[in-house]
Amino acid sequence: MNNLKHYLSQVEEIFNHEVFLAEPRELYEPIDYTLRLGGKRIRPTLMLAANAMFGGSADCVRDAALGIETFHNFTLLHDDLMDRSPLRRGKPTVYTKWGDNTAILSGDTMYALAWRYFLRQPTPHLQQILNCFNETAIEVCEGQQKDMNFETLGLAKVNLDAYLDMIRQKTAVLLACALKIGALYAGAPKKEVDNLWNFGIHLGLAFQMQDDLLDGYGDTAVFGKKTGQDIRDNKISFLPIMALQLGDETRKNELLNLFATKDNMDEEEKVRRVMDIYNTVDLHSTVEKNINDEFQTAKKIFDSIDVPEDNKTPLRELMETLDGRKK
Amino acid sequence: MNNLKHYLSQVEEIFNHEVFLAEPRELYEPIDYTLRLGGKRIRPTLMLAANAMFGGSADCVRDAALGIETFHNFTLLHDDLMDRSPLRRGKPTVYTKWGDNTAILSGDTMYALAWRYFLRQPTPHLQQILNCFNETAIEVCEGQQKDMNFETLGLAKVNLDAYLDMIRQKTAVLLACALKIGALYAGAPKKEVDNLWNFGIHLGLAFQMQDDLLDGYGDTAVFGKKTGQDIRDNKISFLPIMALQLGDETRKNELLNLFATKDNMDEEEKVRRVMDIYNTVDLHSTVEKNINDEFQTAKKIFDSIDVPEDNKTPLRELMETLDGRKK
Repeated sequence: MNNLKHYLSQVEEIFNHEVFLAEPRELYEPIDYTLRLGGKRIRPTLMLAANAMFGGSADCVRDAALGIETFHNFTLLHDDLMDRSPLRRGKPTVYTKWGDNTAILSGDTMYALAWRYFLRQPTPHLQQILNCFNETAIEVCEGQQKDMNFETLGLAKVNLDAYLDMIRQKTAVLLACALKIGALYAGAPKKEVDNLWNFGIHLGLAFQMQDDLLDGYGDTAVFGKKTGQDIRDNKISFLPIMALQLGDETRKNELLNLFATKDNMDEEEKVRRVMDIYNTVDLHSTVEKNINDEFQTAKKIFDSIDVPEDNKTPLRELMETLDGRKK
Repeated sequence: MNNLKHYLSQVEEIFNHEVFLAEPRELYEPIDYTLRLGGKRIRPTLMLAANAMFGGSADCVRDAALGIETFHNFTLLHDDLMDRSPLRRGKPTVYTKWGDNTAILSGDTMYALAWRYFLRQPTPHLQQILNCFNETAIEVCEGQQKDMNFETLGLAKVNLDAYLDMIRQKTAVLLACALKIGALYAGAPKKEVDNLWNFGIHLGLAFQMQDDLLDGYGDTAVFGKKTGQDIRDNKISFLPIMALQLGDETRKNELLNLFATKDNMDEEEKVRRVMDIYNTVDLHSTVEKNINDEFQTAKKIFDSIDVPEDNKTPLRELMETLDGRKK
């Protein structure tokens, strides 16, 4: 069995060989730019590794891997526009470089291109695969809306369950979908397809919680971006929600006030005061424990999948890489 | 065979019985609003009538009809945002009512919902139908980009061929797609499916040219909106392109200047002067002739389709309705 590195480089090769430019240039240049920005390529890698786990070969999922990553990058493109994020992977986002209209239309086109990739990948399980992809896409949209709703609701009105439901839809289902589709292309049995889906959900929850944790506690040099951005943006993440559960009444109120501030406070002072509260309630270790619990649940489901241990190597490696990730 | 009215009311019934509201409300309310705004429902009607022409029943295409109209309304929703159009069918557009972000995300979700409808419509021709829908979607995006490019290029640099190519992609292919998919669901032979597609392209070209004509020459009371809006917006349509071909050097230059004005001229004065040029070169009758030629080409292709004449009644009626349309 090949190791994780093999699948990562296979994904890179797939992207390097694909032509994204076409006419009209004004539409496809931002698409090419977005798809060549790189990133971790986790979703296509999950798909290839899940496919190989059940005896598939890279050819079985080449186009579908392009499809899932193209869809993911479409959602990032539109999210960046909606969130007015100036940078993505350290580079200017499409709307800052080409304007809002290009971001809207190039994003729409990427969504259609994702479908083109899925439709050109031969499989006897087409309907099931497309249903899975499409229902996932709807959930991702719903998750993004819920995330935007949180901003309007404010920290005081968002509880842990609502937050977990939101990140399940916004982040976890697409990881689960990548795994499930990879397995379906290889003709995996239903029971194991379901296991992979559930494994992906817990992996995705852990992944998103890590993202939230890194925003507060990442090492800027490794993380690649300034920490504390969620705090500056009053962004409701796992950190403030958990801190509210851990703090006493005084800290709770202070945190709620800090997350309700608009432009009337020095940003770095605000980050410092929020981090002080986080540290006082020992937030880091609580959040790490929660992340670890999700990883353990994911691992238990993964262990139960009935294929030769050797076939599991790449996904196990990937899980371990994610578990210890610093960026 | 049923008449056109039957299929129009069947489409209305399909939409009246469908539930578009779901959670989160903030996402689905604008979708429900958009899909209940009405409109001519030409695309689903074309699909039902094409399906019936080859012996299909409404059940064969019910969901696909919802799918094509949902997709069409998604493109309108995003186009209105990109074009900053305040009104659609006489009502406030989604971005004016709920903001840009809602317009982006509800639009994305409508696109996914269109897929859900297509995927739940049983057919042995799934792959071919989905390919047709998806390649059409990509062309619609490309057409919209070309339309936006025209604005940057300016009237002097857009020729008739480029304009026809743009409206083929932006408008005609979706009508052709609706017809083709309707026929595919009924298992029509390849030759006739191709004929229907070509019929739809010419019908679509005529339809878009009519739209352009009505903007200049529509009867406001019947048309339902103020005429001359394309002139106020410097919008490059069939009218100025054709007028450039018909006018002498003086009028040509005057028209180019008028279409290059920003905010330094009284809008109604501008409309009056452009319409004066149009009238001097007898634009109305030239454009009507072009529209009529397209309808004749469409009709010839339609006539050649080998099904009992009775089966053609609804589409023939629809063609006649469009031919004489005043709005």
